[in-house]
Amino acid sequence: MNAIDRLTEHFKRFPGIGPRQAKRFVYHLLKQSNADITNLTNLILDLKKNVRVCEDSFCHFYSDDPQERLSPIAKDESRDNSVLMILSNDTDMENIEKQGVFKGRYFILGGLLSALDQEPEKKLRANDLVRIVDKKSKNGLAEIIIALSANPDGDNTRDYVLQKLSPFEGIKISTLGRGISTGAELEYIDEGTMRSALLNRK
Amino acid sequence: MNAIDRLTEHFKRFPGIGPRQAKRFVYHLLKQSNADITNLTNLILDLKKNVRVCEDSFCHFYSDDPQERLSPIAKDESRDNSVLMILSNDTDMENIEKQGVFKGRYFILGGLLSALDQEPEKKLRANDLVRIVDKKSKNGLAEIIIALSANPDGDNTRDYVLQKLSPFEGIKISTLGRGISTGAELEYIDEGTMRSALLNRK
Amino acid sequence: MNAIDRLTEHFKRFPGIGPRQAKRFVYHLLKQSNADITNLTNLILDLKKNVRVCEDSFCHFYSDDPQERLSPIAKDESRDNSVLMILSNDTDMENIEKQGVFKGRYFILGGLLSALDQEPEKKLRANDLVRIVDKKSKNGLAEIIIALSANPDGDNTRDYVLQKLSPFEGIKISTLGRGISTGAELEYIDEGTMRSALLNRK
Amino acid sequence: MNAIDRLTEHFKRFPGIGPRQAKRFVYHLLKQSNADITNLTNLILDLKKNVRVCEDSFCHFYSDDPQERLSPIAKDESRDNSVLMILSNDTDMENIEKQGVFKGRYFILGGLLSALDQEPEKKLRANDLVRIVDKKSKNGLAEIIIALSANPDGDNTRDYVLQKLSPFEGIKISTLGRGISTGAELEYIDEGTMRSALLNRK
Repeated sequence: MNAIDRLTEHFKRFPGIGPRQAKRFVYHLLKQSNADITNLTNLILDLKKNVRVCEDSFCHFYSDDPQERLSPIAKDESRDNSVLMILSNDTDMENIEKQGVFKGRYFILGGLLSALDQEPEKKLRANDLVRIVDKKSKNGLAEIIIALSANPDGDNTRDYVLQKLSPFEGIKISTLGRGISTGAELEYIDEGTMRSALLNRK
Repeated sequence: MNAIDRLTEHFKRFPGIGPRQAKRFVYHLLKQSNADITNLTNLILDLKKNVRVCEDSFCHFYSDDPQERLSPIAKDESRDNSVLMILSNDTDMENIEKQGVFKGRYFILGGLLSALDQEPEKKLRANDLVRIVDKKSKNGLAEIIIALSANPDGDNTRDYVLQKLSPFEGIKISTLGRGISTGAELEYIDEGTMRSALLNRK
Repeated sequence: MNAIDRLTEHFKRFPGIGPRQAKRFVYHLLKQSNADITNLTNLILDLKKNVRVCEDSFCHFYSDDPQERLSPIAKDESRDNSVLMILSNDTDMENIEKQGVFKGRYFILGGLLSALDQEPEKKLRANDLVRIVDKKSKNGLAEIIIALSANPDGDNTRDYVLQKLSPFEGIKISTLGRGISTGAELEYIDEGTMRSALLNRK
Repeated sequence: MNAIDRLTEHFKRFPGIGPRQAKRFVYHLLKQSNADITNLTNLILDLKKNVRVCEDSFCHFYSDDPQERLSPIAKDESRDNSVLMILSNDTDMENIEKQGVFKGRYFILGGLLSALDQEPEKKLRANDLVRIVDKKSKNGLAEIIIALSANPDGDNTRDYVLQKLSPFEGIKISTLGRGISTGAELEYIDEGTMRSALLNRK
């Protein structure tokens, strides 16, 4: 395999990219100037140097300062320490931050468990979670919101997290409310959603 | 316009049908036997004769008996008289009945109000609703669930219904719970749904 | 099954209609006035009375005159008798007539043969075709254009038609040109189309 | 803007990539090992070093040898020098090569002209084309096939190329045949395609 084919293979591992689009990425790069290419590779290498994982929330963040251990959100003292939201991924956190609907702290698990996963501790930061919750429990943490996708993997992960958090009896643990979402039409709503919407009526 | 074109025009008024499919319906009928055609037109005429609107729930129902005034659901004495669900259309009721998640009574409004609708009473059975609720309030009705789609028309209609029902102070009025629905992914969830899901966490 | 369900079943046989849309058709009709319903059933019954199959082209046409045997296209003396286009369905003819690109005569086969069809003569008007071509061959017919869809069934049907027409040695028999069609992009073109486009380059 | 955002901006310029997917690419890279990242950037830098444009066909090709001026296709002596296919992009050539339907030479224009393009010579290798055709005309070139997409930009580009090639009177210039393509159904075919299919019938 030559450079074109090997780079195509690399791009095929990008999320949502098939062989044809991977090849088009390569041809796109072939048309770029040397300066553009160097800029791109520098930015990619920069990620590894200047982007690190926050020691509190475990989200990725950028900093020039190699000593920095905390993301801007974790450092922001105006945020509410009494509530912690558990999410699976950085992209979930980005979406929620953009909405501005939540002002507490985050913890990023790093993924979701499927029913077939044999070694959950390899896929999720469960030990880090227990350690962080233990620390925060001494510092005013009153509620943990498990905010995972409403699908089987999300439910598996929630059950696993609930079990891990069972020692923390003094902390309220909640999950996101289920019901009809924006734009939902009654004619097409599924049974699980209708059942939740009835249970959670108000 | 000849019979082919005029029937095509008629089929174009069917929900979701464009000119091309309307014409294909006509050619479909042209290939049917005389018996099939007669059968179809008899079934259509039968609708008007034997399908009527229930005097209690205002859903459509079929009965051979021209004296029948109540749908099977309205007549079913095992159902719960203490709770009434307000829906916009028969198709919503069919979906919910199929799921088996609700065992109370129904009232079909007959549509949804858009913000531009000047004469709500022409589009919705608001007076019938008030009359029916008044009657049921003397017969054990304790809660009304307004179960409308989670879109602007649904919200308009809910506000209008709430106003119409304001005289019934002794009856609890609820709306369906909002939150994340089956299959929702946090990464793509909209702000309104996330806000509801946080408010309704538990 | 009551009238609602039986009519739903009928609509499910309409081309491209699933159970949910079939049911919505029924509710659509339930909201129509008696006049609208009567009008619809009369139009459907009218089809069988006033629409017949042309004895020359075998397309469907509408006429008030029960003695009329020929479609307007078959009767139009300004059209070119020297060329006959063989099509599978009325809808194909409608599309081509609308475009105005062809001014000869038509013959509607009535369908396409799949590779599995055991009794082609039941599905296609092959005997009528031979009879009509024989008649037209004495009346100036010089070319037959087999105009069928470019898919396996179209190819099967073309082969069958070619065999049926083999006795007519004096008549030129052509098929539609194959190649790249409007909007086609070279990057995504399939091999068969590219091969034809090369063969038919000019 | 930090490294995450700047890299996201870069990925947004990749063909077919929106802001959300660009951000996911960044998070994908954040999860890669250092070795994977270095491998990726090396492959990208390698493109500029070892991939060059063929001096005959102007397609991109890979070679370790910095002296190499010709792509494997241009060097392949078994290919037919008498016919040259003009294409807009490498991806078109890849598709046709994969099909194995053409065994002549290629020339890659480098793009398509839209009706609004003021400076065609900046977008297309028109001068290179004239030079190459002149050279090949002394070496057995008998036919040029203009093989461009069947859309307005393709047609504009064809007209421009025809004008550029007008001095080469001894060389036959053809364009791809137009007509119905694989899978086309007569009922939905557009007028331009039907007109071509009739003209090119055989």
